Amino acid sequence: MEKAPEEQHPVKAFGWAARDSSGLLSPFKFSRRATGDKDVRFKVLYCGICHSDLHKIKNEWGSSKYPLVPGHEIVGEVTEVGNEVKKVKVGDKVGVGCVVGACHSCENCNNDLEIYCPQTILTYDHIYHDGTITYGGYSDTMVANERYIIRFPENLPLDASAPLLCAGITLYSPLKYYGLAEPGKHIGIVGLGGLGHVGVKFAKAFGAKVTVISTSANKKDEALGHLGADSFLNSRDQEQLQAAQGTFDGILDTVSAVHSIQPLIGLLKSHGKLVMLGAPEKPLELPVFPLLMGRKMVAGSATGGLKETQEMIDFAAKHNITADIELIPIDYLNKAMERLAKGDVRYRFVIDIGNSLASTNH
Amino acid sequence: MEKAPEEQHPVKAFGWAARDSSGLLSPFKFSRRATGDKDVRFKVLYCGICHSDLHKIKNEWGSSKYPLVPGHEIVGEVTEVGNEVKKVKVGDKVGVGCVVGACHSCENCNNDLEIYCPQTILTYDHIYHDGTITYGGYSDTMVANERYIIRFPENLPLDASAPLLCAGITLYSPLKYYGLAEPGKHIGIVGLGGLGHVGVKFAKAFGAKVTVISTSANKKDEALGHLGADSFLNSRDQEQLQAAQGTFDGILDTVSAVHSIQPLIGLLKSHGKLVMLGAPEKPLELPVFPLLMGRKMVAGSATGGLKETQEMIDFAAKHNITADIELIPIDYLNKAMERLAKGDVRYRFVIDIGNSLASTNH
Repeated sequence: MEKAPEEQHPVKAFGWAARDSSGLLSPFKFSRRATGDKDVRFKVLYCGICHSDLHKIKNEWGSSKYPLVPGHEIVGEVTEVGNEVKKVKVGDKVGVGCVVGACHSCENCNNDLEIYCPQTILTYDHIYHDGTITYGGYSDTMVANERYIIRFPENLPLDASAPLLCAGITLYSPLKYYGLAEPGKHIGIVGLGGLGHVGVKFAKAFGAKVTVISTSANKKDEALGHLGADSFLNSRDQEQLQAAQGTFDGILDTVSAVHSIQPLIGLLKSHGKLVMLGAPEKPLELPVFPLLMGRKMVAGSATGGLKETQEMIDFAAKHNITADIELIPIDYLNKAMERLAKGDVRYRFVIDIGNSLASTNH
Repeated sequence: MEKAPEEQHPVKAFGWAARDSSGLLSPFKFSRRATGDKDVRFKVLYCGICHSDLHKIKNEWGSSKYPLVPGHEIVGEVTEVGNEVKKVKVGDKVGVGCVVGACHSCENCNNDLEIYCPQTILTYDHIYHDGTITYGGYSDTMVANERYIIRFPENLPLDASAPLLCAGITLYSPLKYYGLAEPGKHIGIVGLGGLGHVGVKFAKAFGAKVTVISTSANKKDEALGHLGADSFLNSRDQEQLQAAQGTFDGILDTVSAVHSIQPLIGLLKSHGKLVMLGAPEKPLELPVFPLLMGRKMVAGSATGGLKETQEMIDFAAKHNITADIELIPIDYLNKAMERLAKGDVRYRFVIDIGNSLASTNH
């Protein structure tokens, strides 16, 4: 008989878990493995709430295994390191993002692209090398192989930089890979949410001209005034769309609802790139003729490798880039999920694990 | 009142034109401009029949102006050059492809990408700088600005290399631009027609492993035996598709009918590229999730710039690459169009203009 989550491993752990597809989260006792030779253990201080956590707790992608402890924007302080660990020491500020394992021998792993390894192991709701289920950062303690540990420079506030581990790298990586992280490029960011708002910040830091593209005209002031975008395009306004035809080098589309990409392709210059970062459930309509006529592309990107994630965090520290967050205690979690489902957050919830989790462990 | 085609310009010309959307072609007297200072005039010897000629004569893209003289795979021998022409001299073998003009001042023109210039002027059924309609290569004489003239090395047979001016560059350019023209890459060619068969030859010459992907199992012998592809994948065979998942660096899709690209995206490795070269009339279904998970892209490409077209012809001469053609006299033209519509040609019709056109001028 399979052991209960609390008894699978030697180290006691406590977090909040969803128990079924209602998605309701509640206190949950489980366990984590002992610190291996190459492992880093840390006390979790903050964990961001990613939109995919919402999909996962409600089993909207069909693969959720319960109890499910979400969270892949995890930061904290190192409490123990294995004998062979060189990257960090006890007391260092560290984080873990979306991935905690991979094969370490394939072409993708050899190129520091662990997220694209066919055997990549996600931080939660996945099967680890030892056969046990991975649990995420809505919990008091975390352990991971040092390859998956990101160092946080002192000047980055831990709470507001936690979301960079998923939202940040998800925008940073395609800007770099698709040649858009260059001064003078005109970059569009579609959707001003958890992903989009850090996209504006990174693209600006790379020296791009940034236009926020949104169906919500009321986000204009926020985009221009608060986030520092150069312009705002209301994608429901045909005149604005027409006037901006053929003016973008690249567009990062963070929208995960089914939507039309034809107008976005029209906004691209020749050789322009539309990069999809959200995953609509159904196929989108792809007009092929405009792709041919302008040698344009529609591409995808999924977070980034560990080496690039560290590079992104160091870049964020240098340019003072953090997410705009609403810090919440863990007992606000279910309410936060309700609000997130309605898009009612500017722009990322972060759970104050260090100051609120323990008191819910009765 | 607008002048008749025969009287618009000083130089008499004769060709075959479609008169209406029936697409039937018949003898047609028109005229071409005098040789300007930067112009090259040449006697047309051969002209390839591109699939787009078929669309154009039947007005299937909705923009055809009649009478319409098709043909943009035009080769011949120089008969006159303008005072400022440096590229070629009388007697040289030359060709003209899809484009005869552009603005020469935009970013695309400055980067030798005239085909992507917003003011690009196509070789036929377009408006030239002087306001007259452009007529293509199903005709006895041709004139073009020297920028649009391609030199043909002596060792390339003119008849079989004419199709390289459209079909050849259409495959060569994306192989180069998308980083697929490298030894050891695994390249898929979807559709073994006028475009696909030269794609196999170029990809092989670049040192790639080439797999022909087709719904017609009976093309296997031709692909492997005659064209030298390394393997053949029947895309209607689910087992073959499954076995080849994630093994392609790039796939060039030459099919212009509406079809499913989901299986093709599945065939790509991480970071693989699906390049569309045909233009289906309706949007295709684009599954976004696999693009994200493998950082894949679906892109387009349209022929290539003039500098690259010359590079392609020189490369073809060096590697003895020509199209497989069926040479026809001009009075077989309407029959050839019928056969082309059914895909009944291996792989490109070329009209023997030099030896058959004059006798139809009564």
